[in-house]
Amino acid sequence: MTNPRILWGTAHPALGDAVAEALGTEPVECEVERFPDGELQPVVGHVRGEDVYVVQPTGPGVNEHLVELLLLLDACRRGGAQRVTAVVPYFGYARQDRRTRAGQSVGARVALDALAAAGADRLVVIDPHTPALEAMSAVPVETLTATPLLADTLTEYVPDATVVVSPDLGAVKLAERYGTLLGRPVAVVRKTRLSGTDVRAEELAGDVAGRPTLIVDDMISTGATIEAAVRVLLAHGSAPDISVATTHPLLVGRAPERLAHLPVSVLVVTDTVPTGRVRTLPHRVRTVAPLLAEAVALLHGGEPLDTLLMSG
Amino acid sequence: MTNPRILWGTAHPALGDAVAEALGTEPVECEVERFPDGELQPVVGHVRGEDVYVVQPTGPGVNEHLVELLLLLDACRRGGAQRVTAVVPYFGYARQDRRTRAGQSVGARVALDALAAAGADRLVVIDPHTPALEAMSAVPVETLTATPLLADTLTEYVPDATVVVSPDLGAVKLAERYGTLLGRPVAVVRKTRLSGTDVRAEELAGDVAGRPTLIVDDMISTGATIEAAVRVLLAHGSAPDISVATTHPLLVGRAPERLAHLPVSVLVVTDTVPTGRVRTLPHRVRTVAPLLAEAVALLHGGEPLDTLLMSG
Amino acid sequence: MTNPRILWGTAHPALGDAVAEALGTEPVECEVERFPDGELQPVVGHVRGEDVYVVQPTGPGVNEHLVELLLLLDACRRGGAQRVTAVVPYFGYARQDRRTRAGQSVGARVALDALAAAGADRLVVIDPHTPALEAMSAVPVETLTATPLLADTLTEYVPDATVVVSPDLGAVKLAERYGTLLGRPVAVVRKTRLSGTDVRAEELAGDVAGRPTLIVDDMISTGATIEAAVRVLLAHGSAPDISVATTHPLLVGRAPERLAHLPVSVLVVTDTVPTGRVRTLPHRVRTVAPLLAEAVALLHGGEPLDTLLMSG
Amino acid sequence: MTNPRILWGTAHPALGDAVAEALGTEPVECEVERFPDGELQPVVGHVRGEDVYVVQPTGPGVNEHLVELLLLLDACRRGGAQRVTAVVPYFGYARQDRRTRAGQSVGARVALDALAAAGADRLVVIDPHTPALEAMSAVPVETLTATPLLADTLTEYVPDATVVVSPDLGAVKLAERYGTLLGRPVAVVRKTRLSGTDVRAEELAGDVAGRPTLIVDDMISTGATIEAAVRVLLAHGSAPDISVATTHPLLVGRAPERLAHLPVSVLVVTDTVPTGRVRTLPHRVRTVAPLLAEAVALLHGGEPLDTLLMSG
Amino acid sequence: MTNPRILWGTAHPALGDAVAEALGTEPVECEVERFPDGELQPVVGHVRGEDVYVVQPTGPGVNEHLVELLLLLDACRRGGAQRVTAVVPYFGYARQDRRTRAGQSVGARVALDALAAAGADRLVVIDPHTPALEAMSAVPVETLTATPLLADTLTEYVPDATVVVSPDLGAVKLAERYGTLLGRPVAVVRKTRLSGTDVRAEELAGDVAGRPTLIVDDMISTGATIEAAVRVLLAHGSAPDISVATTHPLLVGRAPERLAHLPVSVLVVTDTVPTGRVRTLPHRVRTVAPLLAEAVALLHGGEPLDTLLMSG
Amino acid sequence: MTNPRILWGTAHPALGDAVAEALGTEPVECEVERFPDGELQPVVGHVRGEDVYVVQPTGPGVNEHLVELLLLLDACRRGGAQRVTAVVPYFGYARQDRRTRAGQSVGARVALDALAAAGADRLVVIDPHTPALEAMSAVPVETLTATPLLADTLTEYVPDATVVVSPDLGAVKLAERYGTLLGRPVAVVRKTRLSGTDVRAEELAGDVAGRPTLIVDDMISTGATIEAAVRVLLAHGSAPDISVATTHPLLVGRAPERLAHLPVSVLVVTDTVPTGRVRTLPHRVRTVAPLLAEAVALLHGGEPLDTLLMSG
Repeated sequence: MTNPRILWGTAHPALGDAVAEALGTEPVECEVERFPDGELQPVVGHVRGEDVYVVQPTGPGVNEHLVELLLLLDACRRGGAQRVTAVVPYFGYARQDRRTRAGQSVGARVALDALAAAGADRLVVIDPHTPALEAMSAVPVETLTATPLLADTLTEYVPDATVVVSPDLGAVKLAERYGTLLGRPVAVVRKTRLSGTDVRAEELAGDVAGRPTLIVDDMISTGATIEAAVRVLLAHGSAPDISVATTHPLLVGRAPERLAHLPVSVLVVTDTVPTGRVRTLPHRVRTVAPLLAEAVALLHGGEPLDTLLMSG
Repeated sequence: MTNPRILWGTAHPALGDAVAEALGTEPVECEVERFPDGELQPVVGHVRGEDVYVVQPTGPGVNEHLVELLLLLDACRRGGAQRVTAVVPYFGYARQDRRTRAGQSVGARVALDALAAAGADRLVVIDPHTPALEAMSAVPVETLTATPLLADTLTEYVPDATVVVSPDLGAVKLAERYGTLLGRPVAVVRKTRLSGTDVRAEELAGDVAGRPTLIVDDMISTGATIEAAVRVLLAHGSAPDISVATTHPLLVGRAPERLAHLPVSVLVVTDTVPTGRVRTLPHRVRTVAPLLAEAVALLHGGEPLDTLLMSG
Repeated sequence: MTNPRILWGTAHPALGDAVAEALGTEPVECEVERFPDGELQPVVGHVRGEDVYVVQPTGPGVNEHLVELLLLLDACRRGGAQRVTAVVPYFGYARQDRRTRAGQSVGARVALDALAAAGADRLVVIDPHTPALEAMSAVPVETLTATPLLADTLTEYVPDATVVVSPDLGAVKLAERYGTLLGRPVAVVRKTRLSGTDVRAEELAGDVAGRPTLIVDDMISTGATIEAAVRVLLAHGSAPDISVATTHPLLVGRAPERLAHLPVSVLVVTDTVPTGRVRTLPHRVRTVAPLLAEAVALLHGGEPLDTLLMSG
Repeated sequence: MTNPRILWGTAHPALGDAVAEALGTEPVECEVERFPDGELQPVVGHVRGEDVYVVQPTGPGVNEHLVELLLLLDACRRGGAQRVTAVVPYFGYARQDRRTRAGQSVGARVALDALAAAGADRLVVIDPHTPALEAMSAVPVETLTATPLLADTLTEYVPDATVVVSPDLGAVKLAERYGTLLGRPVAVVRKTRLSGTDVRAEELAGDVAGRPTLIVDDMISTGATIEAAVRVLLAHGSAPDISVATTHPLLVGRAPERLAHLPVSVLVVTDTVPTGRVRTLPHRVRTVAPLLAEAVALLHGGEPLDTLLMSG
Repeated sequence: MTNPRILWGTAHPALGDAVAEALGTEPVECEVERFPDGELQPVVGHVRGEDVYVVQPTGPGVNEHLVELLLLLDACRRGGAQRVTAVVPYFGYARQDRRTRAGQSVGARVALDALAAAGADRLVVIDPHTPALEAMSAVPVETLTATPLLADTLTEYVPDATVVVSPDLGAVKLAERYGTLLGRPVAVVRKTRLSGTDVRAEELAGDVAGRPTLIVDDMISTGATIEAAVRVLLAHGSAPDISVATTHPLLVGRAPERLAHLPVSVLVVTDTVPTGRVRTLPHRVRTVAPLLAEAVALLHGGEPLDTLLMSG
Repeated sequence: MTNPRILWGTAHPALGDAVAEALGTEPVECEVERFPDGELQPVVGHVRGEDVYVVQPTGPGVNEHLVELLLLLDACRRGGAQRVTAVVPYFGYARQDRRTRAGQSVGARVALDALAAAGADRLVVIDPHTPALEAMSAVPVETLTATPLLADTLTEYVPDATVVVSPDLGAVKLAERYGTLLGRPVAVVRKTRLSGTDVRAEELAGDVAGRPTLIVDDMISTGATIEAAVRVLLAHGSAPDISVATTHPLLVGRAPERLAHLPVSVLVVTDTVPTGRVRTLPHRVRTVAPLLAEAVALLHGGEPLDTLLMSG
């Protein structure tokens, strides 16, 4: 059996290269020309009859990265690839999975439909914001998780007394997974109505008094959620030894500055998106390249992915 | 402008009839023959050029109701209806919105694809188990909510001191909505890891000591979740005055008996599914017929549904 | 080349098992959970990269079996199967191939569209009620016939003088096939207008006086057609030695009792559907497992099916 | 409400014109240019926002007529028609509704898929060779029948003693419809095996001795089937007063000569296809223009077609 | 009949506003939120049952504008609009209408497929780079032309002796149209092989000696083509009175500076894209708002667009 | 790896046969029956699991050839072919790639959509009239060119002084390719407006005085374009030694007579369509069979086609 073939656009070349190297496969050459008016034109190498994996997260610069991905998929399809898998470690627009008020779009579906129309036969994602992403896609989605990788790295940073903290209700299941992997209890920050009046406050479910904490979330965008959670933890007597772990460290806007002012001892992240903005903070990057490489090898070889998949 | 036209199958004739009556529109005649081998054959009346609404929840007997709905949609399409809207107050298979382990199906998507293939131009649902249902559907989905109706009825039953309780993490957003509508605080039951060891227990976030409680959930199937929540509430000193509210009272299997043995003072439900199994319990049914009738009228007339929609 | 992979749901496990055994291939494990509210959730074993055949007739309990089949197909597709063939030995809803009056559905098309939407790449059926089924399907259909198998078994039961009888006009082509295979003449029962007035009666075309007869039909549902045919045969002086052969012995409702009261010496059937209801009658079951196994082997190996196909 | 708009290509302009006239609607101008290399290019008049009916049977010259119809539909769709209905009074390729031997195409489905792809929103056909045509089509099909019209005309030609004759098994249902409409008994010619040996012969079920007969079929192509039926009737002592009725008088090849040599007193036909080849025979043409005009008026107005439809 | 409804995103609000004003119709409110990570989320006002026109050229910033347009279309579809027309006065990626070397994408098709998948029922474009755009689109395309508008404005600027110049072979048809409208002869600049050797040069077909010239092109991107054409014209003795006209003045990169250094007396353009970059040059903007408004009015009213369309 | 499998219909059997022979592969047997009413019914041999190439140009008799191709594709798909490639050396209807006036169809798209609907997985074409054909197709298109083959043959016929002539603007790019391959200069005939008045004339850009010329075009239909070009060349003093080269020698209608009266020394063509009509002229046929055979071999083997492709 031939090798899987990897190629990538401009969203995250280092990751694509690492995946190819981990697989020991010669990558498909791919140049993406950017014209002065902003139009993109990829030229991919020979892919006829190949099982191709296009590695392109759709993190910040999401619209550029998304359209570039569509063009790459189209080029592979027209070039005669036997199967084209879009490997989108961070899947942008996943938060738009419903209309929360009238008149909105459902961006997750729009992006998924465009990818299928452009020729994706299959998607691979990591820790998407909505685990129901696969139900929204016309083509099969393999939903990987980086939680075990991060948990493995975190064992160095979290003392026995550490409490895993979900910074809001959306991350509770994720926090439970970390709790299980690390053998630690879980606490939850949530906005709640404390009385019958209009008063709302952020409440902490769980006991963190005097204990180190580990805040986990699938992604960190502006850092505002983390900042609020830290404030609640400190108000509840948490020890000032706070770690933060996330799969997708977008850190857009003022996020690096915001996090720099918090008593965060370490930020443990993956490289599903470029990690340049993490560099000014105390951090540790656990690469997902081996995870993706293993997933690609198993997909190409027709083997089950079971242990790599998000579940529950 | 002509009237909207209502028809229904065998899943919940009383509700269809009530919607038609609320709209003051003559229903479309519809007979569904069941052959001895179980095959169904609908005969719908004259629908050519009409704006048709097929009222059919897919509650227990879900597979029968789902296939019958497919046939009804097909009959309307072939009969020349201008537009066919599937009104599915309770949408079965909504819990299958992802694979939680390898090898599973994603039933929500399967059902949605079948409905679209059979000719549904649009769906109307009430409080679906997953609010992202619309992102999974190839045709537009209007997601209504019965929470305000139930909250209105509940004002008779919940004293000022009452605490709204979410019986698990999946219902917290719903509980928050009830809390807001009723002006009551919210507590949450959750399974959690209380220490670094393997011990898991059900924990209560929030204070219910000596207070009446109202447990809310989108649906009650076997009643096991409610039973567990009641046990936790009592263990935390809740007053024995416990109300339960739900949009979809499936009450399958031993649910009526199970609930009958709990100190539940009243079960407040809607009639998105037939409510026969609720009858043996202290209960109150708030019909969704006016909600559906208003939604149909607005959809037919091209008016915004805003206040009827689930949001947030 | 790898082996074809067989799996089955709950409609007819014995047949699926027999097909796998005939092929000497390890079946794919498959559990279908039935929740208390009637929803089904299959978990299929490892099928990535495999050529999978899902054996599931859609006989009585047709709606349950059909939805289960949709879910099984979806699970296989999502699980990464290279190709998924729905093997539906008895295809329910095939009689709904047109609207015989305004307002009806066309169930055959509804079922076929749902199967294609759920991920069937191809269908295999046996003696469908309408041989034009393939023209209604968006995916290729292989139409097998069990007539030669049944004819082979029947040689034991039909004396030389036997006349093959079609119990109505719909089965004449089938009766001609049996006639050819067995070297016997063919007679036809039909409802007809015998005069210019309103009088209608059942007429027999062909001579059966004093001769044994063999009534053949593609399926027996309630047995009413057979009962009427027997009455006509006896009225025309047929010998009381009457055999009956059919591919699909549904025998729903009172069919076993009805047939038990007829002078039928033997009922020769296949096992495209479970044959439990045949057991109380003098019968002979010729299994289609070898036919399906051979078809699967040929399809998997890229060989022509010619001799297995219904033709003419 | 505006009028329906009629246009037609070159397959049967007289019929299109008659339909428009019967409706009292100004036809849409339409020119179809034929280039020297055989390519066709229609130019249709203003159809934006209109409810358009394209009248084009696909009789002999079927491939030319079919492609022309595709181009006409495309032109209407691009021209902004609100809805485009293909009115195909004779639907060619309907006999290819299954593969009767391996390696064949299923032309009915090919034609239907091409029509849907080219922009047909709906089809109207008359007495198609296969009544299951609607199940093969991705867009709704209205299946009209000309049988009552022909029966009405036939009352002049068929004495009381007349027997309706189906010339083969495929036309029996049709013959029964004529029998019911005319109050006449029905006989059937069929090829059959008269003994256990290889001898096959054409048999007549029913008594025609000394009686006038009326042979009916949905279409007459080469006339060979009619010729064989006449031979059988005469052999069974039929009176030499034989009428023939058919919806679609294709009369291709030597059919006019063949029929001219038979003792056929009158050929009663419709004009679903041009009737030029009928002219040399004793004949009567009953136009379907009023039938189509009424169907178009009802479809346009959103009224039920019930009495115009083929049923049973 | 109700009014057409106009809305727009952020690509060119002034144009959308001008179209709405020209139509005298209240625009649909529309806000597009841009999140810190670059994701867009539109909120459109009430569009249920409306005939909506989304005005959004996909000029520079093309990927942002394209994705925003997809989201706007999705929001309109989900909001219940009866019909959604994407009005894309400048259609980006139109130059990618084929692969000019192996491995490329065909961006025009990718963009068109994404628009159709997101819910566009129809497109309106002006002077697209490839007039075959409509053949690439799954939904109908109305191809308008601004050439008559620009020609009308140009009558002020082009003396009788003026020669219309196509700056390359791709614009010859366009130049011919200007020639016809203005009653001027046409010359063509083309790169050619002047001898059998490798020498290539830019040649001028036509006589411009001592005459004013008007260079026309569908779009000006970097200005390089215009610069080269001016050089050729001057080399052939053209008078230094050179006008330039174009429908789409992208003027990306150094285009304004480049054009500022040329002896161009006036740049006559439309506002299919924002014209800010034109401001530093001697220029004249002829707005396409009335053209679009008239097209929308005719489309909405079901009238022919004939005189507004590009032809030939 | 198995061999590619070739089959063909009736449009150009000699070419199909030559391709199969060049590949050394046993062709798939294929009979196409033509019924007296003009309906076609192919029977293709065993193709299950095969990589099949159906060779069928759609030249004159275009509608017959197109429908036959649809049926052949359908037969292959239903017969279980693994992949079906339509090899259409001359692609009819390619000139209908836009509406040049209101009310027209876009035949290129209609044909492409019908081919995709009938089961083509991929197309192979040679020198299509519009190189953007691939952007109009839902399935990938490989666009080959015969220009190098013809140029190779032409070296015998074109003296050093020869000028390559494009007979109109549409063929300029093609002429440039010949110019490059042959190392000759290029001249262009074009209709132009020579003054500000209404006078239009055919102009020649380039110098041909006293020189031999080679007129090139992608196709020759009626020969009228060539005739006009010859007239212009002679008027500009061209030597009477004129060669003509074209990929697709349709030569319909009076083309052979028309060309016979011109001072054309040789007509160099390929056999993408049958070349019978070329025979009466001084000619040379360069077969495309080796080109197609190489393309098929590369496609089947998963190798790049680069040097065979039209580019630029």
